[in-house]
Amino acid sequence: MKAILVVLILLVTAAESVSIPHVRRFLGQFAGSRLRNNAGAALHAAQYETRYYRQRLDHFSFAELPDFNQRYLVGTTAGLWTPPAPIFFYCGNEGDIEWFSENTGFVWEIAPSFSALVVFAEHRYYGLSMPFGSKEEAYKDAKSLSYLTTEQALADFATLITDLKRNMSAEDSPVVLFGGSYGGMLAAWMRLKYPHIAIGALASSAPILQFENISPPESFYDIVSSDFKRESINCFDVIKNSWDVLEAQGKYGDGLISLSGKFRLCKDLNNTEQLSDWLNSAYSYLAMVDYPYASSFLMPLPAYPIKEVCKKIDDFPDGTDILDRVFAGVSIYYNYTGSVDCFDLEDDPHGMSGWDWQACTEMVMPLSSRKESSMFPPYEFDYPAFADECIQNYGVRPRPTWVTTEFGGHDISTVLKKFGSNIIFSNGLLDPWSGGGVLQNISHSIIALVTKLGAHHIDLRSSTTDDPNWLVELRETEIKLIKGWISDYYKDKAFTTYSIIPLFI
Amino acid sequence: MKAILVVLILLVTAAESVSIPHVRRFLGQFAGSRLRNNAGAALHAAQYETRYYRQRLDHFSFAELPDFNQRYLVGTTAGLWTPPAPIFFYCGNEGDIEWFSENTGFVWEIAPSFSALVVFAEHRYYGLSMPFGSKEEAYKDAKSLSYLTTEQALADFATLITDLKRNMSAEDSPVVLFGGSYGGMLAAWMRLKYPHIAIGALASSAPILQFENISPPESFYDIVSSDFKRESINCFDVIKNSWDVLEAQGKYGDGLISLSGKFRLCKDLNNTEQLSDWLNSAYSYLAMVDYPYASSFLMPLPAYPIKEVCKKIDDFPDGTDILDRVFAGVSIYYNYTGSVDCFDLEDDPHGMSGWDWQACTEMVMPLSSRKESSMFPPYEFDYPAFADECIQNYGVRPRPTWVTTEFGGHDISTVLKKFGSNIIFSNGLLDPWSGGGVLQNISHSIIALVTKLGAHHIDLRSSTTDDPNWLVELRETEIKLIKGWISDYYKDKAFTTYSIIPLFI
Repeated sequence: MKAILVVLILLVTAAESVSIPHVRRFLGQFAGSRLRNNAGAALHAAQYETRYYRQRLDHFSFAELPDFNQRYLVGTTAGLWTPPAPIFFYCGNEGDIEWFSENTGFVWEIAPSFSALVVFAEHRYYGLSMPFGSKEEAYKDAKSLSYLTTEQALADFATLITDLKRNMSAEDSPVVLFGGSYGGMLAAWMRLKYPHIAIGALASSAPILQFENISPPESFYDIVSSDFKRESINCFDVIKNSWDVLEAQGKYGDGLISLSGKFRLCKDLNNTEQLSDWLNSAYSYLAMVDYPYASSFLMPLPAYPIKEVCKKIDDFPDGTDILDRVFAGVSIYYNYTGSVDCFDLEDDPHGMSGWDWQACTEMVMPLSSRKESSMFPPYEFDYPAFADECIQNYGVRPRPTWVTTEFGGHDISTVLKKFGSNIIFSNGLLDPWSGGGVLQNISHSIIALVTKLGAHHIDLRSSTTDDPNWLVELRETEIKLIKGWISDYYKDKAFTTYSIIPLFI
Repeated sequence: MKAILVVLILLVTAAESVSIPHVRRFLGQFAGSRLRNNAGAALHAAQYETRYYRQRLDHFSFAELPDFNQRYLVGTTAGLWTPPAPIFFYCGNEGDIEWFSENTGFVWEIAPSFSALVVFAEHRYYGLSMPFGSKEEAYKDAKSLSYLTTEQALADFATLITDLKRNMSAEDSPVVLFGGSYGGMLAAWMRLKYPHIAIGALASSAPILQFENISPPESFYDIVSSDFKRESINCFDVIKNSWDVLEAQGKYGDGLISLSGKFRLCKDLNNTEQLSDWLNSAYSYLAMVDYPYASSFLMPLPAYPIKEVCKKIDDFPDGTDILDRVFAGVSIYYNYTGSVDCFDLEDDPHGMSGWDWQACTEMVMPLSSRKESSMFPPYEFDYPAFADECIQNYGVRPRPTWVTTEFGGHDISTVLKKFGSNIIFSNGLLDPWSGGGVLQNISHSIIALVTKLGAHHIDLRSSTTDDPNWLVELRETEIKLIKGWISDYYKDKAFTTYSIIPLFI
């Protein structure tokens, strides 16, 4: 099987054959849904009110275009908060901002001890922040989508913050940015591009180096694979060997029907790639959410879910069919509650997702799978095929080198050694995206916090009684660094005021 | 007389009455012309070849728009230059790039001692870098002009540099930015926004603080006035008193005809404001080019031209008509060679200039004139009237707070104290734009070099045998700082290479 695997932050976009690959939406359902089985959800929802800001569609031209309403959440402590106390600003990523608010309990939890106002801003073209009046209109075609870019989203945040501060007479309040995953990339880039608007950024699990050849394109699947191998070499081997078996069975007579039955699919398979994509996604997401406690970020899952998956796979008696093992394994991911009767692979068949557009325009992150170290079928990222697919599906040609031109990335340690300050890049090494993250300190204030056992932006989640010590310590370090930024800022403000030299006295 | 005076970097845009003000193009001829009486011109022209780069019209959206050809000049030493030797990159401002090349001899002169390649890039919508195929099409209306913005121009430079370096296998060559006036603003902002593309910037006479209320709006005219007062209090008083006389004469019977005769105008005046604008421009530009040696940057002029103007004004016998004095004075500016038969106030009656558009969109620089210290008629910048004028003339509404949102400016010393590096802000205090410049060091590597007797970006001009010591020393300091940036860069490159920690060995 040759699979083009383009795994994105919260969405897996998997294309199948080399000849006519296609991009498929995979995990948009999660970014779109809210109020899942999340204990923290109700709590945080009560803490904010929802507002809208009239936002310019194109900040960088004077073309006449309709404004749109950008949604943002403001902590209900707004009345109690007094400038110049800080503002904690979450840079919304590719989904409903309420969902990110619910899954970013850390910001809500620490804000009171900073007397900080909390703001969560939604990213344009997601949730309820739709240009042209509706999602249908915003997502109509390449023309309507053409303003869905990262630079425009950052400029949205910049104008929103500037206007909020002005309206609340809070010009002197320091703003600290937070973001996880793509939101973490936004937070880091925003601190670099708009230092006058935010004094620092906590960028959690932000793969800002997963572009061009900066990070090895194999790291994502290598890390997923390693997460499984860590639990059990047998588990790793079973999965690694399962792809060929799957493909062979699919080719055999009524193999697709038999596979559909074995995997309890609601609809019969058209080809084996549908199934291998589905499995691939489960493993990839399991690696991202391999948290040390039960959680329901993407799916309701037990603590250390990969351990549970491998336990299922390993616990069968010798001679068990390899695909029975694999099915039992991924059922931990797709059906932990046991409530699913049959599995629907086409979880969102209609419409393109915003992230698909972004991946086909600016966010071109090459991912490959190498035979030696990966449990996935080998695959080398094929840019021309990828570009063709984008042109075919979205009518747009990617600009694969634009992100590094606009935001940098190459040789980042030299570039930022004496430029920029106050950024925390936090990464957990279980997280497959950590391969594209900043894992070494760049300067005394551009800091890499790396935890061996952390998964995808675990530090931003609400604290739990099951938090391991390393997680408690990680958050304490982050709080201490942020406190330092804020205290430096107040110190600088008090002792330095810029004034024009009186020229002629 | 109430005059709305909006003086721009190279263009004076003066609007006349409060009721129906209009924007008038004033000095575009200079930015558009080239090969004036400049000794250095031929020399530098021989040093470069002209190339074109296929540039994207809108970097920040994926709207389908036609590309355009951006002109750039490359030093003919390109063949001798060997990467990773540096690249000296001039950020073209609002005019023909050949003209800037000719008037930026400093860069050409110092490049050989750095073994540097010189590149001068033209700003979009100026010179020969016209979107839509021609100036006529590019300047057709607000829609065609809508991509004439500073952010797009910086992105042009970023993509051009990135592509040039790639094509010349010069990825490791450090890029140093240069710019004067608006070009200096571009150089400084480019270093702040694209630190991964350029290691430092020499921003000469860059009024990046002439926005909103950051610098006093009165500083420009206060400095012009002070430049005259410095030479002679009588000269200052004559000019200060001339405006009322002018206006009174204009009202009297055939006063406009008589004024037209006195000032040797080719066409009779329609109103006195035409004449006062013409005088205002002469004084403002004289202050900008009050160089210590004869020059012909804007006009052929003697050394210290304001001294000469005041000498003319002062040398008349007592009782001479004040307007005769004023006319003799400005004749130094408009007719130093004595070759002008009559003066044409409408020096470029057709078409809008690019800078008018920029001033009516992003570059809103409030300028006022205060009674106490200015020799100009008092005027308070009136934003609503200004905005109305822009809507009326160009069909576009300014965004007066956008520049500070995008590039900062407020409280710059706190913001950049621990952020950013390697910027020289050089300013001469005779230059009226210095009031909007950075005049104090911000950090150990964001440096303000201030000369008491410097005028508009004199440091960027070719050296002359008449250069005063302070100018020689200023340039030596700049060279030393730039050498430091480059040597730090090579040092960092040699000892630091960023590498992803091997995650799983």
